[in-house]
Amino acid sequence: MPQLKFYYAPGACSLAPHILLHEVGLPFDAIANEVTQNGANFIEGFHRINPKMRIPVIALDGEVITETIAVMTAIANLAPEKHLLGQTPLETLRVYEWMAWLSGTVHGQGFGELARPERFSDDPAAHDGIRAKGHKTIVDCYDMIEGKLTGVYAVGDSLTLVDPYLFVFFRWGNGLGLAMKEKYPNWAMLVSNLVKRSAVEAALKAENIDSTL
Amino acid sequence: MPQLKFYYAPGACSLAPHILLHEVGLPFDAIANEVTQNGANFIEGFHRINPKMRIPVIALDGEVITETIAVMTAIANLAPEKHLLGQTPLETLRVYEWMAWLSGTVHGQGFGELARPERFSDDPAAHDGIRAKGHKTIVDCYDMIEGKLTGVYAVGDSLTLVDPYLFVFFRWGNGLGLAMKEKYPNWAMLVSNLVKRSAVEAALKAENIDSTL
Repeated sequence: MPQLKFYYAPGACSLAPHILLHEVGLPFDAIANEVTQNGANFIEGFHRINPKMRIPVIALDGEVITETIAVMTAIANLAPEKHLLGQTPLETLRVYEWMAWLSGTVHGQGFGELARPERFSDDPAAHDGIRAKGHKTIVDCYDMIEGKLTGVYAVGDSLTLVDPYLFVFFRWGNGLGLAMKEKYPNWAMLVSNLVKRSAVEAALKAENIDSTL
Repeated sequence: MPQLKFYYAPGACSLAPHILLHEVGLPFDAIANEVTQNGANFIEGFHRINPKMRIPVIALDGEVITETIAVMTAIANLAPEKHLLGQTPLETLRVYEWMAWLSGTVHGQGFGELARPERFSDDPAAHDGIRAKGHKTIVDCYDMIEGKLTGVYAVGDSLTLVDPYLFVFFRWGNGLGLAMKEKYPNWAMLVSNLVKRSAVEAALKAENIDSTL
């Protein structure tokens, strides 16, 4: 059994791999960092663990893996019988297609602009415009997410990496005051189904947050 | 043999999967779009192929796959004996870690800010500051790339998705006027080794561009 160390921050995007770890069911150490409106407070020495200063991070027997897509792939590999990367090669492609877009465009661009405008300009006078553009990008992407969903799983007929990641963005949408349930019924159905899982309950409890449904 | 249709633009990030297609060696149809300083000129009807309006795109027997990470995974799957996703499960994690960071932070954030500031603010007065921040992000990331490279392949002892993707960013660095060879000797060694491959020559010829080495 590999030694697992998981670095997260409550309510951050690391909630998705946190849920996945509980799905897999192996024991792991969870190390909490903190993300605030004004930035992230990482544990001391975190820059030596991930010089990119981002969570999530997972260490497998000392091998440090960064980037949400890689971290979640690593967790999925711990339980191949659960097919968390999809049931077929084509489903796996769809999983990576979803993950890349959610990570790059929805999170990195949309929420990056909204919550971290200083990544995009050193001029504070530009930050309100960047935040506004981020909000627009998020809403455009959310409309696209709703249009892509047709069942209670994002890909195929079973749980993949994508579902808990979509849960993160659903929670964040509620945090922004978007009428998530009313505006995005397909997405809300996926999330309502997901939160019944004991792994979701366990991860929320460990992070001391609620589902915001 | 699957029917393959590949949508690219000369010199764009799609050069990486284009090289990979030549590595795999199966026949494919290549459909050229155009990316200019002022935006992208896609072929008519491209919004129906990829509503996100981005290249690369690959269609495998009519299944349209978007997002560079997924497109390159799809191509790698066509020739499993070449291990283009890495030779071991850990190498595959490293491949996805590299790809996610290059795609999200280096391309989406850094080059996005530099070349497409309108993605980050509707206020034209903010665009110069966004471009400047993009340039800074790129240089910071390039220093990190150089520090991560230790051999002529990014991951392990053989070609993976990461190497042709790093070639794209090396070319773009030359395009920005950065002293790539002098400043990044490890990266330059990887690229010098890569461009010896006939697949690189074939892709450059098909796109009617040079290696800019």
